[in-house]
Amino acid sequence: MNHRLEIHVDRPGLHDITREVAAVVATSGVADGLCTVFVQHTSASVILNEGADPAVRRDLEAWLARLVPEGDELYTHTDEGPDDMPSHVKATLTGVSVAVPVIDGKLALGTWQAIYFCEFDGPRNRKLVVTVLG
Amino acid sequence: MNHRLEIHVDRPGLHDITREVAAVVATSGVADGLCTVFVQHTSASVILNEGADPAVRRDLEAWLARLVPEGDELYTHTDEGPDDMPSHVKATLTGVSVAVPVIDGKLALGTWQAIYFCEFDGPRNRKLVVTVLG
Amino acid sequence: MNHRLEIHVDRPGLHDITREVAAVVATSGVADGLCTVFVQHTSASVILNEGADPAVRRDLEAWLARLVPEGDELYTHTDEGPDDMPSHVKATLTGVSVAVPVIDGKLALGTWQAIYFCEFDGPRNRKLVVTVLG
Repeated sequence: MNHRLEIHVDRPGLHDITREVAAVVATSGVADGLCTVFVQHTSASVILNEGADPAVRRDLEAWLARLVPEGDELYTHTDEGPDDMPSHVKATLTGVSVAVPVIDGKLALGTWQAIYFCEFDGPRNRKLVVTVLG
Repeated sequence: MNHRLEIHVDRPGLHDITREVAAVVATSGVADGLCTVFVQHTSASVILNEGADPAVRRDLEAWLARLVPEGDELYTHTDEGPDDMPSHVKATLTGVSVAVPVIDGKLALGTWQAIYFCEFDGPRNRKLVVTVLG
Repeated sequence: MNHRLEIHVDRPGLHDITREVAAVVATSGVADGLCTVFVQHTSASVILNEGADPAVRRDLEAWLARLVPEGDELYTHTDEGPDDMPSHVKATLTGVSVAVPVIDGKLALGTWQAIYFCEFDGPRNRKLVVTVLG
């Protein structure tokens, strides 16, 4: 039911992982059910959003960076660098799991939906868990 | 396990869909389980919030509209109109799925909780998937 | 499959409930599955974030308090006090449920992850539902 997924991201920002998640669903053999994607980190998250135009991804990254800037005088948790506390805030606002129905053995995504892993820290190896219930 | 739900919304904003989701749960025959509601769009979302006083709904709409205004110079994805990029940001902040326990064959909502479909674009026909696991 | 969990919180803010949720998972007997935590309120939420340094918790509380201040002239729903509408907004931004995989009979949390109940109102008794699927 649970499948570990390790990914490498070469930069902060949104990364389309739809293909990797779809591959897990395909091998699960579940025809009718639910798939969840869970991020095992506190400075990263996972969302669904438009996957067609790269400008959407970049605008989302820029919007979040402006709302949650580095160097904010409010932060007291600063030991791990200026991007650490912003990454915790962004992860809280966007969330560390998503749930997508599985219909006819496939992710029941809308026409424009992609699954994005959101990296709020530097280049990193990251651990996710994909759960397929059915 | 999965049930498609199509709705028409006549204006942007929050729309109470608790009754529609509860009807799917009732017909599923599941007594003890979990219900998820998934939105197949990138300019809409689904949340749980207070359903008693319409002012809560209106204040939430107004708060989000102020936080994520149209015409923001930050946006580069502007081909689909001034409300398009704000709708993607709002959907990201509020999320495209919710999960509610099913107990005694019913949604285990708190006293004040309602399920709201959040429309961030114009009047539209929208597709949701309600999954009942149990 | 569903287990009711009642907690008392003695102050607004984030409260680590990882131990309470883990106890439900342990008694469920599920080895491989999914655990969801659902909050039956509209002025509280549940998130995952760093549990090691208390400064993270305090910075998150302070960040949300600044983004969603009391006494905002935008609010029309003010009958229930100055902290009521901010609590609904904060609950909407952070979400009332989380889903965590269960592997080898335990919550598959990352090294730094804790499950936080977020109280946005005064000291309260609160009702949650923990669902363990598997």
